[in-house]
Amino acid sequence: MTQKLVTKPFIEVLSGNRQASPPMWMMRQAGRYLPEYRATRAEAGSFLDLCFNAKLAAEVTLQPIRRFGFDAAIIFSDILVVPYALGRAVRFEVGEGPRLDPLNSPDLVGTLNGAIDLSKLEPVFEALRIVRSELAPETTLIGFCGAPFTVATYMVAGQGTSDQHPARLMAYQHPGAFARIIDVLVESSIQYLLKQLEAGADVLQIFDTWGGILPPREFEKWCIEPTRRIVEGVRKVSPGAKIIGFPRGAGAMLPDFIARTGVDAVSIDWTAEPNMIRERVQSKVAVQGNLDPLLLIAGGSALDQGVDDVLKNFSAGRHIFNLGHGITPDAPVAHVEQMVKRVRAYKG
Amino acid sequence: MTQKLVTKPFIEVLSGNRQASPPMWMMRQAGRYLPEYRATRAEAGSFLDLCFNAKLAAEVTLQPIRRFGFDAAIIFSDILVVPYALGRAVRFEVGEGPRLDPLNSPDLVGTLNGAIDLSKLEPVFEALRIVRSELAPETTLIGFCGAPFTVATYMVAGQGTSDQHPARLMAYQHPGAFARIIDVLVESSIQYLLKQLEAGADVLQIFDTWGGILPPREFEKWCIEPTRRIVEGVRKVSPGAKIIGFPRGAGAMLPDFIARTGVDAVSIDWTAEPNMIRERVQSKVAVQGNLDPLLLIAGGSALDQGVDDVLKNFSAGRHIFNLGHGITPDAPVAHVEQMVKRVRAYKG
Repeated sequence: MTQKLVTKPFIEVLSGNRQASPPMWMMRQAGRYLPEYRATRAEAGSFLDLCFNAKLAAEVTLQPIRRFGFDAAIIFSDILVVPYALGRAVRFEVGEGPRLDPLNSPDLVGTLNGAIDLSKLEPVFEALRIVRSELAPETTLIGFCGAPFTVATYMVAGQGTSDQHPARLMAYQHPGAFARIIDVLVESSIQYLLKQLEAGADVLQIFDTWGGILPPREFEKWCIEPTRRIVEGVRKVSPGAKIIGFPRGAGAMLPDFIARTGVDAVSIDWTAEPNMIRERVQSKVAVQGNLDPLLLIAGGSALDQGVDDVLKNFSAGRHIFNLGHGITPDAPVAHVEQMVKRVRAYKG
Repeated sequence: MTQKLVTKPFIEVLSGNRQASPPMWMMRQAGRYLPEYRATRAEAGSFLDLCFNAKLAAEVTLQPIRRFGFDAAIIFSDILVVPYALGRAVRFEVGEGPRLDPLNSPDLVGTLNGAIDLSKLEPVFEALRIVRSELAPETTLIGFCGAPFTVATYMVAGQGTSDQHPARLMAYQHPGAFARIIDVLVESSIQYLLKQLEAGADVLQIFDTWGGILPPREFEKWCIEPTRRIVEGVRKVSPGAKIIGFPRGAGAMLPDFIARTGVDAVSIDWTAEPNMIRERVQSKVAVQGNLDPLLLIAGGSALDQGVDDVLKNFSAGRHIFNLGHGITPDAPVAHVEQMVKRVRAYKG
């Protein structure tokens, strides 16, 4: 019996076909702004316990789809599971965020285990299989990883930092050692992403949350080139893989990023200048974004105006509606509903 | 006796004449990385005590000129002296940064005194007169203010914030109240800048440290328009006033900024994409910047490479060499000397 070919609006946009009504989802849509997430999170114990409990991770991945009908689900996980699978001691302290054993000297970098143990991530692949089996066929499932530079900023400092100085300083003073961390993360991320495709992910996204902090030469070396190598490595095994890049804050360096990495789409943050994006980015790849998440706190006419601006700026082209960064825990659900309603009403 | 007309390389660049060797100075050049600054700072007592002690403020303004021979001195002061002169309770807590009484509701904004008391800033004008009298004629003296949006982020929150959410949220939810703060700051800044010109400043700079966090519509409303009004207001009284804008992180919104505000130059941060800057910014105004301040910590070949990149990217046009943001207290003086030597050796 031939399986009825189901079109996924999300995949259509990535494959070159604009949709009259842009598909939509939200970064961090599985999160603390949802009461049902908070309940499942409490049941699971720690944050990592939730990531590695396949059944509960699948549950929180599906919750925003059930509630809002988004066009894509993104597997519930974290960019630091790759260092975890490389044997780094990763933990999440309540109210403090991630903590790792810092890799803040060339000698320590020398001790980094170069081989990822993917068996440690089996719960993520199991959660992907569960989600894929429960999602409607037309809903896209997104797998993801952190980009090497962004993951390296946590590995070097041993935690999040406001300015990424420890990692940036190592990149300047010990480029060889920093390159070793990047190389290990490139190879590990390729394997991790391929396993996510195998487990049912339709699309992959690479999150470079801190990429935009880099000056041009460093952006080329530590953001563009590692992303290019990951895209190339994934496509060697899975030639048709659909991949979205998100070098947050990259601004006018985006045209170079898309030309050199070969991604199918790029996510943009809320400060992106629309004319440059339309002319030099959206003319080549699909664009995802870019509502200011603060508007989901503000609500009211400002939220309506913000949604209309995003639609007017980008929905004439290949566009996936999203935020410019993740939704924050203090966003009222009613404001998310207000946004969804307005985007769904758009028939540009 | 006719005074011999002395050309100031800095002013030449702002007036349209490229210099073979770019004039240079550093944002926050009067700062804790200098031992002589630390000594004067200790003598003065609190940070505000130093700002309002004309003799000592002049001394720390002159110290980096004596030590490095920079082409410009910037008066030692702070962007929060304007709210101070508007009657806001401004204080600097050691290790904590600035603290003000928050203006975080429309009602509280209603209590904002709209008239600046410039007599409270007389020590700044006195320090300017002292510095101007002691500077070599060819050295430029810069007066400055914070841009209204950036100053408003401190006034609304009552302190510095990592994401400027309190002010941004007021701008979304209570645009009328936020506009009142901006209007008071526009008018006060015009008067404050004119008094600095009177006291001997040759050039003015407007620091919008947080401008780049705004999405396009908000950037236009709270960064471009207030800066345009200040430039217009200053030039109504002093038509030839030379003014530098610094909307940090504005990226691809810079062409719009320079076209609409009428500034003579724009300072750019280290993430600026060079091709776009040359084609759409430096073709119209002078460019100031943009070395990554972290390179003054890194030193070595990375610092040399960074200096060479800035010179190669911008010194073929009208360029003032500077950092992409202020020098940090942990920068070794030897690395500053390394940078100065390399820039001075450039005869492009």
